[in-house]
Amino acid sequence: MYTDKKISVAVIKRLPRYYRYLGDLLDNGITRISSNDLSKRMHVTASQIRQDLNKFGCFGQQGYGYNVELLYEEIKKILGLDKSYNLVIIGGGNLGQALANYGNFGKRGFNFIAIFDRNPKLIGLNIRGIEILDVAELENFLKTNHVDIGVLALPKDNAKQVAPILVNNGVKGIWNFSHVDLDVPDNVVVENVHLTDSLMQISYAINGDIE
Amino acid sequence: MYTDKKISVAVIKRLPRYYRYLGDLLDNGITRISSNDLSKRMHVTASQIRQDLNKFGCFGQQGYGYNVELLYEEIKKILGLDKSYNLVIIGGGNLGQALANYGNFGKRGFNFIAIFDRNPKLIGLNIRGIEILDVAELENFLKTNHVDIGVLALPKDNAKQVAPILVNNGVKGIWNFSHVDLDVPDNVVVENVHLTDSLMQISYAINGDIE
Repeated sequence: MYTDKKISVAVIKRLPRYYRYLGDLLDNGITRISSNDLSKRMHVTASQIRQDLNKFGCFGQQGYGYNVELLYEEIKKILGLDKSYNLVIIGGGNLGQALANYGNFGKRGFNFIAIFDRNPKLIGLNIRGIEILDVAELENFLKTNHVDIGVLALPKDNAKQVAPILVNNGVKGIWNFSHVDLDVPDNVVVENVHLTDSLMQISYAINGDIE
Repeated sequence: MYTDKKISVAVIKRLPRYYRYLGDLLDNGITRISSNDLSKRMHVTASQIRQDLNKFGCFGQQGYGYNVELLYEEIKKILGLDKSYNLVIIGGGNLGQALANYGNFGKRGFNFIAIFDRNPKLIGLNIRGIEILDVAELENFLKTNHVDIGVLALPKDNAKQVAPILVNNGVKGIWNFSHVDLDVPDNVVVENVHLTDSLMQISYAINGDIE
């Protein structure tokens, strides 16, 4: 039922939140909901909700509201969550290990299949059943395994060296925790998680309130 | 020299990136730069740069460009990075420990002073000199220590319980890694880092390219 209408980046950014709320509704046995009720829960206007969700076909019907499960399944498909993905983490330090240890990604179909590091003390360690391998083996690993997403959890200079290896071996998405902007071809997606930048939004806002 | 002109949220979101690039320039001994040169490095238009940076006073001069250090220091002040902040982490699992272990936050003035958990196996552990305390002691700790920012790195139902304790004891900023939206008063800042939502942006984009 998903139409071919182009969906804007802003709407795409909001979809995971809809998906989360709809999932909670399903968990609570709620099978239909009006845009007004959803609006109250999500603290966005009902008209915003209608505008966003009506793009995906005729799920909202006057006097009935949205069919929660249909909408949930549709957003799942749009977000590509009806498939599964193989991920490798480059950087087996604290952050890399924390990501590998986080069980919820697997539930959504994001499966970590290997971790790479250059530190001999880390190589060979086993994180939730995933062995940390020598980063020297990365290229060969990518040639012999299907990897969708590379996760960069290493210092910024190393991240710049590793990104081209991922790109040149068919990796289509990079989840970049390294504090650097990456230059990649247009057909590769980079999603940045710059934690320090995020903290700076807080320090800015705290000071705005104080002064 | 920072004027009182209201800065938009969009510009504030871009400031940490300017700050990072200007810091790199300083590290490389570059003391002035034109908006055109900065534009090439940052892959944004020169007019965007001029529009953003001219808000902070007369740092850009025709034929001279920007004084890198002045601009760096000014952005530092705007972002509140000329001060330091005390942070507590609630949730001493993998993510909480990874954040505590990440040394770069301290360099920016974000100091973790305590970690809290309810798991007896974690309580008493020492992460980079910070002891994991019983979460039952959180309220008392907040009453006897100055804490600016609370970091929520725990399951979503627990995060909902802990947020009011932070808010009611004077914490002004919440860095929320828990996969839930928090209801807090307007004078408290919440910065969400929803990692799963971020991954969904990648799976969406990967599929967009494939189909």
